[in-house]
Amino acid sequence: MQQENKILSRRISLIQSKLSDFKIDGIILLNIVNIRYLSGFAGSDGALIICPNSSLLLVDGRYTTQAALEVQNIAIIEYKDKVEGIIAAIKDLRLQHVGFEALSMSVDMHNQLTSRLANEELINIGNDLKFLRACKDEVEITLMKKAAIISSSAIANLIGDIKAGCTEKELALQLEIHARRAGADGLAFDAIVASGANSALPHAKPTDKKIKKGDFIVIDFGVKYQGYCSDETCTFAFGALTDKQKNVYQIVRQAHDEAIVAIRVNVAASAIDQCARSVLGQRYGRYFPHGTGHGVGLEVHEAPRLAPNSQDILEAQMVVTVEPGIYIPGQWGIRIEDTVLVKKNSCEIITKMNKELFVIN
Amino acid sequence: MQQENKILSRRISLIQSKLSDFKIDGIILLNIVNIRYLSGFAGSDGALIICPNSSLLLVDGRYTTQAALEVQNIAIIEYKDKVEGIIAAIKDLRLQHVGFEALSMSVDMHNQLTSRLANEELINIGNDLKFLRACKDEVEITLMKKAAIISSSAIANLIGDIKAGCTEKELALQLEIHARRAGADGLAFDAIVASGANSALPHAKPTDKKIKKGDFIVIDFGVKYQGYCSDETCTFAFGALTDKQKNVYQIVRQAHDEAIVAIRVNVAASAIDQCARSVLGQRYGRYFPHGTGHGVGLEVHEAPRLAPNSQDILEAQMVVTVEPGIYIPGQWGIRIEDTVLVKKNSCEIITKMNKELFVIN
Repeated sequence: MQQENKILSRRISLIQSKLSDFKIDGIILLNIVNIRYLSGFAGSDGALIICPNSSLLLVDGRYTTQAALEVQNIAIIEYKDKVEGIIAAIKDLRLQHVGFEALSMSVDMHNQLTSRLANEELINIGNDLKFLRACKDEVEITLMKKAAIISSSAIANLIGDIKAGCTEKELALQLEIHARRAGADGLAFDAIVASGANSALPHAKPTDKKIKKGDFIVIDFGVKYQGYCSDETCTFAFGALTDKQKNVYQIVRQAHDEAIVAIRVNVAASAIDQCARSVLGQRYGRYFPHGTGHGVGLEVHEAPRLAPNSQDILEAQMVVTVEPGIYIPGQWGIRIEDTVLVKKNSCEIITKMNKELFVIN
Repeated sequence: MQQENKILSRRISLIQSKLSDFKIDGIILLNIVNIRYLSGFAGSDGALIICPNSSLLLVDGRYTTQAALEVQNIAIIEYKDKVEGIIAAIKDLRLQHVGFEALSMSVDMHNQLTSRLANEELINIGNDLKFLRACKDEVEITLMKKAAIISSSAIANLIGDIKAGCTEKELALQLEIHARRAGADGLAFDAIVASGANSALPHAKPTDKKIKKGDFIVIDFGVKYQGYCSDETCTFAFGALTDKQKNVYQIVRQAHDEAIVAIRVNVAASAIDQCARSVLGQRYGRYFPHGTGHGVGLEVHEAPRLAPNSQDILEAQMVVTVEPGIYIPGQWGIRIEDTVLVKKNSCEIITKMNKELFVIN
């Protein structure tokens, strides 16, 4: 707990040190994940105000008791109405120039606040905190490795359950059971178990479709462990594949492998995407309709983005996915994904399943 | 499918009929649940533009194939970048006055659009679509009743699993297994299984705490079935209770029952809240830190709000929860929740567990 408090204090100090750059005397944070990262509060709604010498966590009555248990060194205020609560806090703190994150405030909230704050100015600090959580500290990395082990072990366990005739939904449930029994607190996102033509949908939902011979089975799975997410995709073959299926698997595999080899500090995230994309080439590039990867942490999708139009640069201790895929509409799809920790001259793969083509008979 | 298309067309027509009231020649919707409600698209990201005589669904490449399967009668456009895609669509459609929902657009998105749309005007239509999904049609009600039956059966099934020494987490997993086996597509929210002092946290997360004699066990559970949510809370006694615990249970029960009796068309939602609150009285009202209920549908929390400061009025076919609670910090808590369908002179309870005090021995 003491170490955790020290980490939280350091994070708050970092924000405090930026206030003068923005020419603001306080900042209001509404992104609930940033609030958790900075305060330790793990509820679903609230607001955090950070001033040069103090911070205030605003929560509704559902969370007063929980916040008192989770949050140290930050005053907790209960509100009945969020807008009223924020206005009262800004007035109490006598803030004049209040920063906010443009991505996390709705136009509605902004209008309500500005119409009520006649003497105070709300200042858009843009997306400057976009990378607040991108580089993970050692404690976070330990938790993320644990989350990755849990989800990999669940996928490994599931292999024994895959039989002809069982449905995608049954396998998705079984996957979750394995993960919970291995210590997962919950899922990072709805598990994808997609077979046959469903595997051609990058974000397929498990259906009552029965697994049958010749199918690819795409399993995209992640858990939460103490708030941190994992993310891994395996594409298994169920029974014999066609030569084309085998070849395309190896192309996706190569795109995945080459992108991972290219990862290191100071490389453009778009270059990693390009690396994967160039392996797919003209022939298969059009069947790869999403970015190559994304950051993972308290959220399963967070900064940076590994995509063609990304401006992000990889930094040490970022944790990102590498997940190229080829999806032939109406036929089948393949995605291969690992999560990696960015290092100075390379990266460390923290997910645990190897990505050899695995045929289940 | 044909009936479904007819329903979707009717919903789109309703929006189209309102465009002239807002003095706009098109509206851009970003709320993904409203997009699903209007188009049938069940992905996680996109934008829907509705014009007097046409509609356009914008999705990224992950969802092109899925959208084509799910959406009829609406053109689908794939974008690489959401803002660019929206701008291109507005220009292609030659829209001049484009409405948007203030609650669903971030200040960042608004700034990006306005800076790029020199000749077009973005018009805030406020929260006028807040009640778009509040009154359910017969198809929706059928699905919600099915969702309610699944979650009630899972709770009923769980009773047999509750033994001294099993943990909250184990019970939460078992609850989900029962629900999935009964046909749930997934959970409407993370299950709450909270015992002893944890039951005093309205939004508790299941922990490794072991169930022991004398505990209240609060089980707040809901599933998704074809997109629709259920929501029900039972508070069970595990072993003998104190007289105070028994008395307080009956007070919460009475608050729940009286609020339900008061529900009918044209009653203020705040009056239902007041009805529950007045039963708790001065003595226990301060231990009831949340609203009495909320609408349920494609989202587990949607309009209307049954709370002290709500301006909402109950209408026929609304589906709302009634869930008073008393939480004594550090000791124990009780919440009793049903979901009901609002009717002209009464309401119909669609959740299935009765709320007699149930003692598990």
